Amino acid sequence: MQVEIVTIGDELLLGFTIDTNAAHLARQLAAVGVEIVRRTTVGDAAHSIATGVRDALDRAGAVITTGGLGPTADDQTKPAIAALFGRAMRLDDEILEGLRRRWKDRGWGELPVSNEQQAMVPEGARILTNNHGSAPGIWLEDERGRWVAMLPGVPREMRGMLADTLLPLVRERAAASTGTVILSATLRTTGIAESKLADRLGDLARGIHGMPLAYLPGVDGVDLRLTARGLPAPDAQRALADGIAQLRALVGNHAYAEGDRDMADVVLAHCRDHRLHIAVAESCTGGLLGERLTAIPGSSDVFRGGIIAYENDVKHALLGVSEDDLRVHGAVSEPVVRQMAAGVRNRLGAEIGVGITGVAGPGGGTPDKPVGTVWIAVDTGHYQRAYGGRFFGDRAEIRYRATQSALEMIRQAPLR
Amino acid sequence: MQVEIVTIGDELLLGFTIDTNAAHLARQLAAVGVEIVRRTTVGDAAHSIATGVRDALDRAGAVITTGGLGPTADDQTKPAIAALFGRAMRLDDEILEGLRRRWKDRGWGELPVSNEQQAMVPEGARILTNNHGSAPGIWLEDERGRWVAMLPGVPREMRGMLADTLLPLVRERAAASTGTVILSATLRTTGIAESKLADRLGDLARGIHGMPLAYLPGVDGVDLRLTARGLPAPDAQRALADGIAQLRALVGNHAYAEGDRDMADVVLAHCRDHRLHIAVAESCTGGLLGERLTAIPGSSDVFRGGIIAYENDVKHALLGVSEDDLRVHGAVSEPVVRQMAAGVRNRLGAEIGVGITGVAGPGGGTPDKPVGTVWIAVDTGHYQRAYGGRFFGDRAEIRYRATQSALEMIRQAPLR
Repeated sequence: MQVEIVTIGDELLLGFTIDTNAAHLARQLAAVGVEIVRRTTVGDAAHSIATGVRDALDRAGAVITTGGLGPTADDQTKPAIAALFGRAMRLDDEILEGLRRRWKDRGWGELPVSNEQQAMVPEGARILTNNHGSAPGIWLEDERGRWVAMLPGVPREMRGMLADTLLPLVRERAAASTGTVILSATLRTTGIAESKLADRLGDLARGIHGMPLAYLPGVDGVDLRLTARGLPAPDAQRALADGIAQLRALVGNHAYAEGDRDMADVVLAHCRDHRLHIAVAESCTGGLLGERLTAIPGSSDVFRGGIIAYENDVKHALLGVSEDDLRVHGAVSEPVVRQMAAGVRNRLGAEIGVGITGVAGPGGGTPDKPVGTVWIAVDTGHYQRAYGGRFFGDRAEIRYRATQSALEMIRQAPLR
Repeated sequence: MQVEIVTIGDELLLGFTIDTNAAHLARQLAAVGVEIVRRTTVGDAAHSIATGVRDALDRAGAVITTGGLGPTADDQTKPAIAALFGRAMRLDDEILEGLRRRWKDRGWGELPVSNEQQAMVPEGARILTNNHGSAPGIWLEDERGRWVAMLPGVPREMRGMLADTLLPLVRERAAASTGTVILSATLRTTGIAESKLADRLGDLARGIHGMPLAYLPGVDGVDLRLTARGLPAPDAQRALADGIAQLRALVGNHAYAEGDRDMADVVLAHCRDHRLHIAVAESCTGGLLGERLTAIPGSSDVFRGGIIAYENDVKHALLGVSEDDLRVHGAVSEPVVRQMAAGVRNRLGAEIGVGITGVAGPGGGTPDKPVGTVWIAVDTGHYQRAYGGRFFGDRAEIRYRATQSALEMIRQAPLR
């Protein structure tokens, strides 16, 4: 089963919003055997929506749109697509009642007149209930079985409606049509360059069991992705599991996770297994390492906290870094980062202390310590390692790569 | 001048990578008067690239692609588009030499055979130099003046090549064709709902000076965006400046910034003006507030650092929060957050202390303190304010909204 996605919104086309909905939709649909063959983004104008959806419908026969269902004048998705299907618009009393109730329940008072537009639906449409917001979704189908499903643009609402209502509907149709799925599996690597990986993988770089292998370099490292198409689910799963095992054997310890699992999650699980606690001392990353660890639900049984020591006197006062070393070697130096890691471990009563200090840029670089210079240390009391290196990219990338390396150093440390 | 964007890659179509290039391209091009009329994403297969680019070229006559220029077998952009233009591929000695030099200079040894593919170019192509990576870009044009520019998919390389090479080229053509630009201006608001904004704006909600007004709700608040099209640059700038001033008058103090400026930047500038320093005490946000402040270059003259007090005993030991209050009121409570803010201000010697504690979820909620319950306090020594509320969304949204509210509370505080 093939589907095209059309995301609607001037803010997407003009680049003011990054389109995260399209990626989420694609992943969810692939898992039920739907192949996204093309994605189109068009502006808010009714004629742009109509031509974009018409082209997609002509090619694939099935289209999912996001956006343009809101209460304001630039929300034209429903009437534009209704016109494409030759349907009139009508006011749906049940939706209107639901909107009024929602407003009242939340203490927002009377429903604004502008929001009544959200209760207008095309004749003959199937309503997709929205349990996460006010705009309902719409399913329109013609006599030839070609369909368009319209979802809201707000990511939380779109995701909820997809899971609750649209996905079961699409899954039913996809299974009836082929019984096959599209499944991917990803092996995440870090600390090894794309070209070195390719050399190490040799012939496998061209694919395994007919599944193509893609290299996805990013700030986390290089992800290796295998994709199985046109197989029944159990066969696809078997082929992928075997393919990932073959990759793992060649990649070795540079592989840290599968799927989209974050390194922070891997490190937390690793420390949880060893009943160890982490404390962080961050300078140039300013809290990003703590943020990444605590982004994972349930991190509180491993992560104790940390000290953001952005100023030198905070490094001294709260972490016990020697004022002499700060003066002589500078804040971005091996002695300082070692004392940061040991200091935060002691002050917070954790078994593992991590320190990061560096020059994130764009200013602050010197010939000795150019932008991107970062020192990282891990201290466990009976083991200490410091690493100094230079990371490339902009401020955000340098900071992110520094936290990724720090996490990798915890993962590689002899913990007991 | 109208251009279409075609982003290429299975990882985009399958949703494994979020397409940030498209947004960047659109913004940069709009500022030189180029209108992006449609954006398409296709997979890596040569026929998908060829049909996607052909359709776009037929509609707009000018296309920019990203992706598929790498060294691996799934990089098919150049041959696919060369075939569309009826051009053969040839090996470019100069590019090959450059690649070899790059490898040598970086100490990577011999150029791998797989990378030699990056020196293949279509006959008659113009080379777009890549100062930020190994894959050069390509400009192909036919006898009717229709063109395709091919950029790499790695964001840093794409951005560099766009700024260095492609943008000057496109700007020249755009100015020659119309002399007009597309410009947008955005007023950022926080702490006020979309529908309340619409009521407050009244007739202006339909647009100002013929410029449409878009509402862009997000985790930061609601952005209001005006877009001027088809005017010479000075006229567009004048109309936008006047429009934003009219919006500001109606929105009042809920407006905190223009453009894409982050609240953290606004707060840093505000404190810098008052020569005040910030220290943060974070529990549920785990470092995110520090991360947001330090993401802004030059934050070190305002931001001193902070304490990530994820565990209760860290709140007591490092921030001086009363153990009795932690036991009696719980970690997510008004007395605790007030002591966190005051404690971090004292310990780090800052004029402004901020505390955040809450239940970010998905676990940890109780009937009394459901997921989303957050307490925030700002302490300046002579002023203290605490706010307790409930934020909606998932873990990431709740955490982000908590930091946004904390920053807004600093912005609204009487600082002297």
